[in-house]
Amino acid sequence: MGETPVRIGILGCASIARKVSRAISLSANATVFAIGSRSVEKAQKYVSANAFIPPSVKLYGSYEAVIDDPEVDAVYVPLPTSLHLRWAVLAAEKRKHVLLEKPVALNAAEFDRIVSACEANGFKLSSDAQAYTDPDAGGSRMEGFIHSTFTFTADPEFLKNDIRAKPDLDALGALGDVGWYCARAILWAVDYELPKTVTAIKGTVFNEAGVILSCGASLLWEDGKVATFHCSFLSNTTMNITATGTVGTLHVDDFVIPCVETSSSFLTSTKTGFSELDTEWKPLPSEHVVTNELPQEALMVKEFARLVKGIKEGSLKAESKWPVYSRKTQLVLDRVIESIERGYESVEVVD
Amino acid sequence: MGETPVRIGILGCASIARKVSRAISLSANATVFAIGSRSVEKAQKYVSANAFIPPSVKLYGSYEAVIDDPEVDAVYVPLPTSLHLRWAVLAAEKRKHVLLEKPVALNAAEFDRIVSACEANGFKLSSDAQAYTDPDAGGSRMEGFIHSTFTFTADPEFLKNDIRAKPDLDALGALGDVGWYCARAILWAVDYELPKTVTAIKGTVFNEAGVILSCGASLLWEDGKVATFHCSFLSNTTMNITATGTVGTLHVDDFVIPCVETSSSFLTSTKTGFSELDTEWKPLPSEHVVTNELPQEALMVKEFARLVKGIKEGSLKAESKWPVYSRKTQLVLDRVIESIERGYESVEVVD
Repeated sequence: MGETPVRIGILGCASIARKVSRAISLSANATVFAIGSRSVEKAQKYVSANAFIPPSVKLYGSYEAVIDDPEVDAVYVPLPTSLHLRWAVLAAEKRKHVLLEKPVALNAAEFDRIVSACEANGFKLSSDAQAYTDPDAGGSRMEGFIHSTFTFTADPEFLKNDIRAKPDLDALGALGDVGWYCARAILWAVDYELPKTVTAIKGTVFNEAGVILSCGASLLWEDGKVATFHCSFLSNTTMNITATGTVGTLHVDDFVIPCVETSSSFLTSTKTGFSELDTEWKPLPSEHVVTNELPQEALMVKEFARLVKGIKEGSLKAESKWPVYSRKTQLVLDRVIESIERGYESVEVVD
Repeated sequence: MGETPVRIGILGCASIARKVSRAISLSANATVFAIGSRSVEKAQKYVSANAFIPPSVKLYGSYEAVIDDPEVDAVYVPLPTSLHLRWAVLAAEKRKHVLLEKPVALNAAEFDRIVSACEANGFKLSSDAQAYTDPDAGGSRMEGFIHSTFTFTADPEFLKNDIRAKPDLDALGALGDVGWYCARAILWAVDYELPKTVTAIKGTVFNEAGVILSCGASLLWEDGKVATFHCSFLSNTTMNITATGTVGTLHVDDFVIPCVETSSSFLTSTKTGFSELDTEWKPLPSEHVVTNELPQEALMVKEFARLVKGIKEGSLKAESKWPVYSRKTQLVLDRVIESIERGYESVEVVD
């Protein structure tokens, strides 16, 4: 590239930050420029343990210091969801671009305050969950029915002490963590049209602190499309989506984290019928393999850095589709919570 | 084999009967012995068009004549669901074993009348939908979450005129046709434990005559297991089931009709975790391929004929697991209908 990479500051040394730090280092147009933790020692330890972070990285003993660094172009926020509002707004006020971990916020109202702060300062918000491969299943979006499941079996320690099980940290629990991806994938499949109603599915599991460990919902659109999803910390790793419309079906078994990093695959069927006597499919489903030039996280960082650079140079505007997509995802999750609270009643999605 | 095959009489020349007629001819212990239609000419035409039916087959101009033939051991009933009660009961009274197409009946009350008639005469009822491959996914049944989808896109002619779209014939529509398999597969995955509640999912589509063309439901068990299914005549062929429990996941893409007749495959994952940095799955899912000695319909006929023969010879009793499994499937479908009628309220499953 030869050009100056976008300088990213990271707020905190959460384990999720390692994955994105590596992705930044793999993305030629971005660099891990600064890391802030509760102490410089903690930040130093994190750098020593992760060889992919450049030795030139600046270390700070606070998150504020990263945000205050005038050379930092953008910050990545891997903090618990309950801290997103505070740090994303502060970063925006200090004229930094923001890459937030999902879920973006605890609810759509908080989401809007974050976006307002970013927009007021002419900056960009992105959320990490945009790194979908975008398979073109025959050129048309799916109508009809969509189902997505994202689960993993958390150990007992996680279920009690992980930030995703704490009501004061990632209060949305499994819904905000794995459920975010299900809702987002479903919205992707319908070209981000919001459903008319959301109805939680009976059987939500909470931990002792009242955080959701497992839940699901059905979504209904104005034109009759239906979707269901299930998300859980209590069942073996499963991350699939099936979308079926009048003429075709798409199925992906690993839509969030690919089974292998260098490629991902999906199945499509188009106008499927049967052989004589209905004993075989005709035509058979097709498997499509996408080879990844870079891991998906690095592709996301590359795109984020491209946008940040464009805004910095005046060739791009701050507005983009990502906040719109993330906000719709947040609205769906809000309604799932509301439906659970109302005893599984259907609730209208009003934007 | 050398032994006399079980002599099966077929009531009617419906197109579905062709598939099972072929299966009977492929099963060494059974034979298509008689066919009854509204006229002998119609039956003759059917035989001429289907080379796999033995030329020795007896042709009758009525269903009664098949049932009255003392040499017929068992009858296969591919008639519309609304006619099952009448013909299955008549056949049982004439001391025939009965192989019924699914759905067995319009509701559990009718189901029970059919079973009573069979049992009163010491005979056996089976239903066609028992031909599942029975993959042993690591030796343990799944707990947790199960989803099944079975859809196909019916043409406009079908949606108006097929028996499965007629309120006086197969009144359960898509629920009784494709939904039967979803409910049955879900019950299979939980070892046929009945759910505690059934809640239909908003978005049911009816045709002008009030027959269901598309619907879905969620099921909740006493111990917290949850399942959802979607069945439809309005979306491209999809027939999958995903079952995930604490330690494993099973996924089958073609659980009703295999993509190819000679083999079927499924995916399992056990104790799935991730590589360092959560960028890949570890271990990867395993694909299992089952080679089929005979098409699944023929395996079903073979098992049916084995049971009929055993009962005839006095070595087996008429009781078996199949009526129990089918009855539970029927109970679940009954509750889906009830939930739809009650505006998508949850309804208790009481046996």
